[in-house]
Amino acid sequence: MQDIRERFINLGIDFAPGQEGSLEDKISALAVGGNIPGAPVDFSHGDVDAFTPSPGAFEAFQRGVQEGGQQAYTEYSGRLSIREVLAQRLTNFTGASIAPSPEMIITPGTQGALFLAMAACVGAGDHVAIVQPDYFANRKLVEFFGGVVRPVRLDYEDKSPAMLNLDQLEEAFHSGVKTFVFSNPNNPTGVVYTAEQIRSIAELANTYDATVIVDQLYSRLRYEGTQYTHLRASGINPDNCLTIMGPSKTESLSGYRLGVAFGSASVISRMEKTQAIVSLRAPGYNQAVLDTYFNEPEGWLDERILGHQAIRDDLVRLFTEAGYATRVPEAGSYLFPRLPDLNVGTEEFVKLARLQTNVTVTPGAEFSPLHGHSIRLNYSQDRNNAVAAVERLIELAKRYTR
Amino acid sequence: MQDIRERFINLGIDFAPGQEGSLEDKISALAVGGNIPGAPVDFSHGDVDAFTPSPGAFEAFQRGVQEGGQQAYTEYSGRLSIREVLAQRLTNFTGASIAPSPEMIITPGTQGALFLAMAACVGAGDHVAIVQPDYFANRKLVEFFGGVVRPVRLDYEDKSPAMLNLDQLEEAFHSGVKTFVFSNPNNPTGVVYTAEQIRSIAELANTYDATVIVDQLYSRLRYEGTQYTHLRASGINPDNCLTIMGPSKTESLSGYRLGVAFGSASVISRMEKTQAIVSLRAPGYNQAVLDTYFNEPEGWLDERILGHQAIRDDLVRLFTEAGYATRVPEAGSYLFPRLPDLNVGTEEFVKLARLQTNVTVTPGAEFSPLHGHSIRLNYSQDRNNAVAAVERLIELAKRYTR
Repeated sequence: MQDIRERFINLGIDFAPGQEGSLEDKISALAVGGNIPGAPVDFSHGDVDAFTPSPGAFEAFQRGVQEGGQQAYTEYSGRLSIREVLAQRLTNFTGASIAPSPEMIITPGTQGALFLAMAACVGAGDHVAIVQPDYFANRKLVEFFGGVVRPVRLDYEDKSPAMLNLDQLEEAFHSGVKTFVFSNPNNPTGVVYTAEQIRSIAELANTYDATVIVDQLYSRLRYEGTQYTHLRASGINPDNCLTIMGPSKTESLSGYRLGVAFGSASVISRMEKTQAIVSLRAPGYNQAVLDTYFNEPEGWLDERILGHQAIRDDLVRLFTEAGYATRVPEAGSYLFPRLPDLNVGTEEFVKLARLQTNVTVTPGAEFSPLHGHSIRLNYSQDRNNAVAAVERLIELAKRYTR
Repeated sequence: MQDIRERFINLGIDFAPGQEGSLEDKISALAVGGNIPGAPVDFSHGDVDAFTPSPGAFEAFQRGVQEGGQQAYTEYSGRLSIREVLAQRLTNFTGASIAPSPEMIITPGTQGALFLAMAACVGAGDHVAIVQPDYFANRKLVEFFGGVVRPVRLDYEDKSPAMLNLDQLEEAFHSGVKTFVFSNPNNPTGVVYTAEQIRSIAELANTYDATVIVDQLYSRLRYEGTQYTHLRASGINPDNCLTIMGPSKTESLSGYRLGVAFGSASVISRMEKTQAIVSLRAPGYNQAVLDTYFNEPEGWLDERILGHQAIRDDLVRLFTEAGYATRVPEAGSYLFPRLPDLNVGTEEFVKLARLQTNVTVTPGAEFSPLHGHSIRLNYSQDRNNAVAAVERLIELAKRYTR
């Protein structure tokens, strides 16, 4: 059993978003000063009580239950009639056609889609190109399947537009890397890649016959003035591109755990076989909720974007005034400010913040070994609570600033 | 990419239960005679319209939705308050205590639990003891993780009680096998292991420090006169035993995809880390449905058992009268009759049955390479339809009997 236990050593979850443990046990000895009271805010994930599930979701679920057996037991890739509707909507959204079968699979959340996609593409010893920083699970998934991470830097702090290091990506492909995974908008920075960069990624993938998995979970929540380019509509060979989306974030349907992957038929065929042994299918009744996805009432999305934009602007202003280097997110609901120089480590500060201010944030090291100086906040929260929480956080940090 | 594609060659899903494809394309050329009309019956899984979800499930889900964020985002191992209640109920049911943390994890279906358990225990090159025949995914999971199957025979056709080959199990452990996976009641035969056999398994696991994963999905649906023994209450070291259950079958809650694994804290800790990258958690709202599990109205379970027992007796009689060797299931809702000698292969016959009689069954080879002569029927169906379907199946088989 020695080997199998080693698989889990680097698979820590203490700081994984949404995972709350008894982290405070040893940290109180480090605390300076008393607590700064205020309403608790958990920035590690969005607050679906502040931004509520998109209209009609529960009713769609109820209709699924009423349909009985045919909705309870669907194909492993999801009920065909649902995929048919969704394929048309996502074709319209992304600007490139999708065949509901075999180019689409419904999964238990976008996490489920990402896991299956990595299972379909990464074997022991395979090198996989991953952006630094990017979604925390990308690295863990590569390691879980015995692969090796090949980092590709994203320069987001000083550059506008942010710049992905395409030379590193080409070097990786040139040396035999066959899979590249990235999120667009980027998690945790809120960067949206330019059309030029996306086209370059497509060209490199075609040249080196590499598969690109693009996590577009936040691609609907785009702020004013942001131009968004879909990789799958940028000249990449269709079988080399897999796109992942889902209604957990912008739509606040995370309690239903729904995701969808579409594109490469060969990758999806392997994902389907894997889903058959991982979880069989996304819960049948839950799949029915996808009826509401890309089918929200007129004006609903605009309102949701404006609601997030207001919070974004408040928090960016607070952090910037306090001297934290903070890029303004172009999309999504993540902020990734760089902490001042502290006399405690970032992970300790994160624990202290939870203990002393009732504010939960995610340490930057979850997203890249190079970004331990930053923290991530999901600001899909009640606006007033979020502002007050960031004020407390900044006040607390002063106590620990060198 | 060569290697990764090979991972999927043996991971076929054409005959996996619930997976309906265009299997009929080439089969019509083989068909003898016309179709035998009748209501379609899909014996590959239970019919939740015939045996409906246990009372209050939807209302429990609705309460979960109404609870909002705290039910949408739970710990990866499932909401603690739900685990606390469930741990007490399953302690009572199994006769050995369970700590809700760290000895329990809620998963997306029992399939999800089985996948995570295998991920936690099986590494590349590890040999894993598997019963022949047993649940089809056991073999596939071992192979997915790069392990090697060590078969342990179950003699169920001629023996009452059925006999697991404990010598083979001990040989496997003696040669270094560290994991044994089996279902009790056995899927596909409906065998319930005797107290003596379960105690022997416990002793062997203790002697060789092996982990035993026991899938007890059907352990509530026990017919009159059946004595059931829980492995975890049979003297096995608690950290060497993981039990998997869930409300998808007896309770017909498969549309909610809920499972639970309990026992070994070390295995569950690795499962939790894996769940964090596989699907994060069982859908939050769905977890609330577990409130109904082991909490059904007085008399509900007895009635459900009697309903299945009546169908079991009907179908066993039909198959036996037609000369098919058919063991009477002691629990569960699976029947595994041996086909007469046919002049087509079992998989072809299964396709012909779907084409000519509108009856779907699962070929025995899914459960063991040695049991291709049999077919599995999940008889959790409408009774009249099930009887008529088996009559059609037997009539059809006559056309292809040598």
